[in-house]
Amino acid sequence: MLRFTRSRTPPDWRDWRHLTKLDPDRSIEDRRLELVLRSGTDAIVIGGTQAITRAKVQTLINRLSGCPLPVAIEVSGPDSIVPGADLYFIPMVLNSPDARWIVGAHQEALKALGALVPWDFLVPEGYLVLNPDSAVARVTAARTDLDAENVAAFVRLGERLLHLPVIYLEYSGIYGSPKIVSAARKAVSGSRLFYGGGVDNPGKARQMSRLADTVVVGNLVYSESPPLAEVVSAVNG
Amino acid sequence: MLRFTRSRTPPDWRDWRHLTKLDPDRSIEDRRLELVLRSGTDAIVIGGTQAITRAKVQTLINRLSGCPLPVAIEVSGPDSIVPGADLYFIPMVLNSPDARWIVGAHQEALKALGALVPWDFLVPEGYLVLNPDSAVARVTAARTDLDAENVAAFVRLGERLLHLPVIYLEYSGIYGSPKIVSAARKAVSGSRLFYGGGVDNPGKARQMSRLADTVVVGNLVYSESPPLAEVVSAVNG
Repeated sequence: MLRFTRSRTPPDWRDWRHLTKLDPDRSIEDRRLELVLRSGTDAIVIGGTQAITRAKVQTLINRLSGCPLPVAIEVSGPDSIVPGADLYFIPMVLNSPDARWIVGAHQEALKALGALVPWDFLVPEGYLVLNPDSAVARVTAARTDLDAENVAAFVRLGERLLHLPVIYLEYSGIYGSPKIVSAARKAVSGSRLFYGGGVDNPGKARQMSRLADTVVVGNLVYSESPPLAEVVSAVNG
Repeated sequence: MLRFTRSRTPPDWRDWRHLTKLDPDRSIEDRRLELVLRSGTDAIVIGGTQAITRAKVQTLINRLSGCPLPVAIEVSGPDSIVPGADLYFIPMVLNSPDARWIVGAHQEALKALGALVPWDFLVPEGYLVLNPDSAVARVTAARTDLDAENVAAFVRLGERLLHLPVIYLEYSGIYGSPKIVSAARKAVSGSRLFYGGGVDNPGKARQMSRLADTVVVGNLVYSESPPLAEVVSAVNG
């Protein structure tokens, strides 16, 4: 029987401290991809918001098929459901007013897949989208003006009522508020707290790695400096 | 320290086969309430959709304070958050297009409560509202025209992605489709399947009790016949 996933068992994603997100809609040279693989990052996540196609995701998956690091896909829509990853993150945007981004699109995808869902390889994420100018905020119409109390309440809801194993503070494009991230840190108990957004130097990586369990870096991959490896070091250091 | 809940530990709600729902907005004579307590039902649930006030919920809780059966409140809004029950069901309407009825109102309530939440006494329910003419369908604008495949996908979503311990098929006011309830039965594995709606005789109670884990009866309490005890017997028989 053909397997949907690359590995036989899901990787130990709870141990991941640093993730590198690759956008299927952005081209990346072999040389730069090689730098990512050697940076010390714990895993690659393929994910993006705009102009995602199955072909683009498949191309990245193929290029990473022999890669020694775990490869996850963050399923932002039906076109991201491509076999060959080690894990599938399933974002649910808790602060969108539109049920489509919390459960609607997910229900449609599950309907299309029928019984063929590799449940053990799915990791639902309670997303809080916090940069109003990001593509994901525009698409989901997320209520981004959340203060610390609001964020803490969403974190408790995601963790305690929905048992989401990941709470993801997504600042995509800007550096987040340490005060907000601290509030989430205090509210979380068993779920893993992911942070992403604006981590473009080792100092910011260090700061967020003290508050979040896992720091996600994206844009940095496509820029010349600082080297990704330095940022990874700062997270682990 | 004052306790929020009536009991020290949550009751074994997973064993409940028959529930009687009392609407805080409907008056019920002592004589009739006594019949409910003697009917053989496993627990009382206080819940409704319209014109719920804290005073009405409190009045029912007070009348049931010495009652030997477990008493749960189904929290349909902030006014249902009243101390003194043994358990609190938290409905999340998975087939509403409006995030308010899935997570929004819940987040607001959690924000208001702060750290004072008796988590062990909360049981989140993945609601599927299926009668388009019911008050809850109108309030939540739920997409009620779901076929068996759609229902199965929602059930898998609620159970596998959100780990909801209850999936609740709510036909409130009409008797549901055994085909739809069967589809939910097949899709569910660990969660408890609740059925509610139109159970007004022992035959219907028997039919739904073969498909669902728990049958909820509401309107019957307020009518003269058949006696509630006969319907409870049919569920347990």
